[in-house]
Amino acid sequence: MVNSKNIEYFISGAISPTKIAEIIAQQQKLFTAGGHDIFLGQIRADNVNENIVQAIEYTAYEAMAIEGFEQIKSEISTKYKLNDLSILHSLGIINKGEICLFVMASSAHRKEAIEGCKECVERIKKELPIWGKEIFENEDYQWKTNH
Amino acid sequence: MVNSKNIEYFISGAISPTKIAEIIAQQQKLFTAGGHDIFLGQIRADNVNENIVQAIEYTAYEAMAIEGFEQIKSEISTKYKLNDLSILHSLGIINKGEICLFVMASSAHRKEAIEGCKECVERIKKELPIWGKEIFENEDYQWKTNH
Repeated sequence: MVNSKNIEYFISGAISPTKIAEIIAQQQKLFTAGGHDIFLGQIRADNVNENIVQAIEYTAYEAMAIEGFEQIKSEISTKYKLNDLSILHSLGIINKGEICLFVMASSAHRKEAIEGCKECVERIKKELPIWGKEIFENEDYQWKTNH
Repeated sequence: MVNSKNIEYFISGAISPTKIAEIIAQQQKLFTAGGHDIFLGQIRADNVNENIVQAIEYTAYEAMAIEGFEQIKSEISTKYKLNDLSILHSLGIINKGEICLFVMASSAHRKEAIEGCKECVERIKKELPIWGKEIFENEDYQWKTNH
């Protein structure tokens, strides 16, 4: 693992392409990695009954979520023999077109990186106490549910 | 699709994190996308009989490969209902730790982005006339085979 301590699980606001480039550059130092799989969650301008999503506001029970991130990272890294697994989730208001979730799995071979990344995203969505409030253009809102 | 004509399939030399950030920023304009899945292929410092891989030199039958990229892109975009599918493959000498393959699939929902990206990478590895010559620290070399 390369400087994993420098990568926090939560970030205030959107995840920028520049931030993503920084993490990729850091993970390139893993000379035994042959593949990285990255998932980016982005705020979609959903149309719900003619009302367009403008942003999602994310809140979390942070202490519990961080324990969950640690557990997911540890279990998936072992299961898929990953070189590293980086996770970043936004908190606060994230506008449509902005990135709110970053997961990067690095492994010697592509299969493990791809499967590990996928399972990590699924577990974050299903297990962690993180909530999204969809804010519409007319300022109405609704709580988002994961599928 | 957003400015896909600006994204070429081949690039001379390694794919930099800055280039990746530029493509991500461009694809963020897809407001109907809720997820992007990115695969990065990286040169692994493999140890083959005590000889360490220093670089891989990629060559391609370019005209045929570009037709193949176009076909793969078209078929997978339709199959997985992708908003876009970006592909970039390096040619020339790429050193250990550098990135030689970039695939980014964007879709409304994460499942399609992840599955589309995975299938695209598999098809590129299996179908296209692109060859890698592994160059070792002692200047020996061998032709790389995909698994």
